[in-house]
Amino acid sequence: MNDVRVGIIGVGSMGTQHAKYLSTKEITGAKLTAVFDQSEDHANWIKENICHEVAVFYDCEAFFQSGLIDAVIIATPHYDHSKYAIQAFNHGLHVLSEKPAGVYTKQVREMNEAASNSGKVYSMMYNQRTNPLYVKLRDLIHSGELGEIRRMNWLITNWYRSQSYYDSGGWRATWAGEGGGVLINQCPHQLDLWQWITGMMPTRMRAFCYFGKHRNIEVEDDVTAFAEYENGATGVFITSTGEAPGTNRLEIAGDQGKVVIEDGKLSFWRLRVPESQFNEEYKGGFGSPECWKCDIPVLGEETGHQGITQNFVDAIQSKTSLIAPGEEGIKGLMLSNAMQLSTWLDNWVDLPIDEDLYFQQLQAKIKSSTVEKKNKITRLDVKETH
Amino acid sequence: MNDVRVGIIGVGSMGTQHAKYLSTKEITGAKLTAVFDQSEDHANWIKENICHEVAVFYDCEAFFQSGLIDAVIIATPHYDHSKYAIQAFNHGLHVLSEKPAGVYTKQVREMNEAASNSGKVYSMMYNQRTNPLYVKLRDLIHSGELGEIRRMNWLITNWYRSQSYYDSGGWRATWAGEGGGVLINQCPHQLDLWQWITGMMPTRMRAFCYFGKHRNIEVEDDVTAFAEYENGATGVFITSTGEAPGTNRLEIAGDQGKVVIEDGKLSFWRLRVPESQFNEEYKGGFGSPECWKCDIPVLGEETGHQGITQNFVDAIQSKTSLIAPGEEGIKGLMLSNAMQLSTWLDNWVDLPIDEDLYFQQLQAKIKSSTVEKKNKITRLDVKETH
Repeated sequence: MNDVRVGIIGVGSMGTQHAKYLSTKEITGAKLTAVFDQSEDHANWIKENICHEVAVFYDCEAFFQSGLIDAVIIATPHYDHSKYAIQAFNHGLHVLSEKPAGVYTKQVREMNEAASNSGKVYSMMYNQRTNPLYVKLRDLIHSGELGEIRRMNWLITNWYRSQSYYDSGGWRATWAGEGGGVLINQCPHQLDLWQWITGMMPTRMRAFCYFGKHRNIEVEDDVTAFAEYENGATGVFITSTGEAPGTNRLEIAGDQGKVVIEDGKLSFWRLRVPESQFNEEYKGGFGSPECWKCDIPVLGEETGHQGITQNFVDAIQSKTSLIAPGEEGIKGLMLSNAMQLSTWLDNWVDLPIDEDLYFQQLQAKIKSSTVEKKNKITRLDVKETH
Repeated sequence: MNDVRVGIIGVGSMGTQHAKYLSTKEITGAKLTAVFDQSEDHANWIKENICHEVAVFYDCEAFFQSGLIDAVIIATPHYDHSKYAIQAFNHGLHVLSEKPAGVYTKQVREMNEAASNSGKVYSMMYNQRTNPLYVKLRDLIHSGELGEIRRMNWLITNWYRSQSYYDSGGWRATWAGEGGGVLINQCPHQLDLWQWITGMMPTRMRAFCYFGKHRNIEVEDDVTAFAEYENGATGVFITSTGEAPGTNRLEIAGDQGKVVIEDGKLSFWRLRVPESQFNEEYKGGFGSPECWKCDIPVLGEETGHQGITQNFVDAIQSKTSLIAPGEEGIKGLMLSNAMQLSTWLDNWVDLPIDEDLYFQQLQAKIKSSTVEKKNKITRLDVKETH
């Protein structure tokens, strides 16, 4: 079988990473054949430093019509994910997009439709779905071990970013450039995992985003969000880029106990009988269900970006099912959009959100933006992020 | 010096506890001389089973005018705390009241005024203030080790209560009997500690209480509350009586690191330089402040109810300063009232709250209550609670 010929769209910080592992043949059945970047410097840097054989394009149309590629990885600023994905599908190419799927759900819905019409393989770079801890937690929930979910609490405040980080890219942390802050740049993984692990999306949310609270930026850098679910469960999601050392602790409580992921460990407190059954049968005063703390084996390795790219290539070559199907990208983005919209309206928002209203509000933010950034773009080493 | 002669008002579950340790002379400088309970059975049970020498009263006025007591411990249902406290102060008696201070702040404000006018010793049974973990955390914060507080997150869901618990007392979990659920009965300690440890009260709150969500009761048994503070800090407080095994985890993040209390341990992650200073000086990409995990010694023992009662007696005899001055009781209650009020209004509430509005809303709940409980009152063994 021929290698899948992969082109990368956007070779800034993250696109460079993808170019590196593709050019060192870490992905079986794939080769890097072309890169496209509007910045000639960026594109040429890849050819000079990473992969001498790669074809370099500064023109998008020439890239798509080159005949050199079967599939693309999109690693541009977020606003352009859907634009390039739609073009790629229209050119009969398979698409793996960086997260988030886009900036607003209206745009991502169009991207999903283009994918569906094309019949091509469509995946999202949700590399945290390869983390064995989350895979195992999802397994416990979907197999019924935890019982019906009642509460989720994710404290994910370890996305520390300094002012100098924000100052390093002209498009960073602006309404026009990114369309958001910690929710759109740092948290898409957790927002995806939140719904993927549980299989549940809220029916409504009430969120409290703070814009430029810790840093001199116009977008949100601190968020507390409250979610209600159809079955009566509730959830809280808290994130910030302004705290050190920060915390990453996910707790999910169900009818049969609770699970906590923290410090790279999964702990399961299992009730001997479900809480609902205990409550029905118990006739005493202060008693509670017998509880066993269980050591749950968590096997396997996090395969990260390479894992998702390998899975994407395998799906193209042998119809392997996708770890992160592209059309699921809209879910995490819906949570992110809902949190911002709830804050702007200072009220509850029902899900699915009013996509037109969100789009209007976002446009208003872009219009009233007073940020004038120098167009300094630095290629950051991303090995310390996801 | 003569022993302080203590009378107990209300000898249900909790009052019985106080009678027990007083009659076994666990409190230096105090003796149990009288009990008053509207239930003759309850009052006589103490004389027959706990303390043969105690004088028993079923009539409140006779109790106050007996000349047998210098101080009272009030352990009635919550609504009556302020009523009896005011009467006691008017009779020139010292007062130690069970938590909560009362059901609504308007009532507690009157209680505080009566205390102030009397000049007598006035304390609140906040026995968790003797827990060395919280004492130490307060020390770290008040001495500036944590820096300015930015976020608090208290997940206190280990207040499991079965339906049979709620069915065991006629006044339990009703608007007329208790004036609330988990906030007014189980959580007063944490609500007090929250403000006592930090020395901070929110400027506004947005809360989500659920009434009778897990149990057949009319009051709240599940709460998520969001708080904003004057310095920009935020906080989340989550509680429930319907989850097992539940969690008790308090995290406080500041400019110089974070502290977590969980599983009876205090952990302090200390930044080498404050986050704000790091942010100002750092010029790189993904860096964050150097952080040291510190083992903090937590010494001493939790002296509990006896510790507070001993401190109360010591304050009467030798002007020792109080661990839990009575007039501070209104603060935790203000948080509780604010959470209910925010839910009822489905909106933000500013603090201090509109006390008249809260009172009106509470009266409306009492009026529209459809609960008709059997007047079955069981004396529960409280050794498993606080």
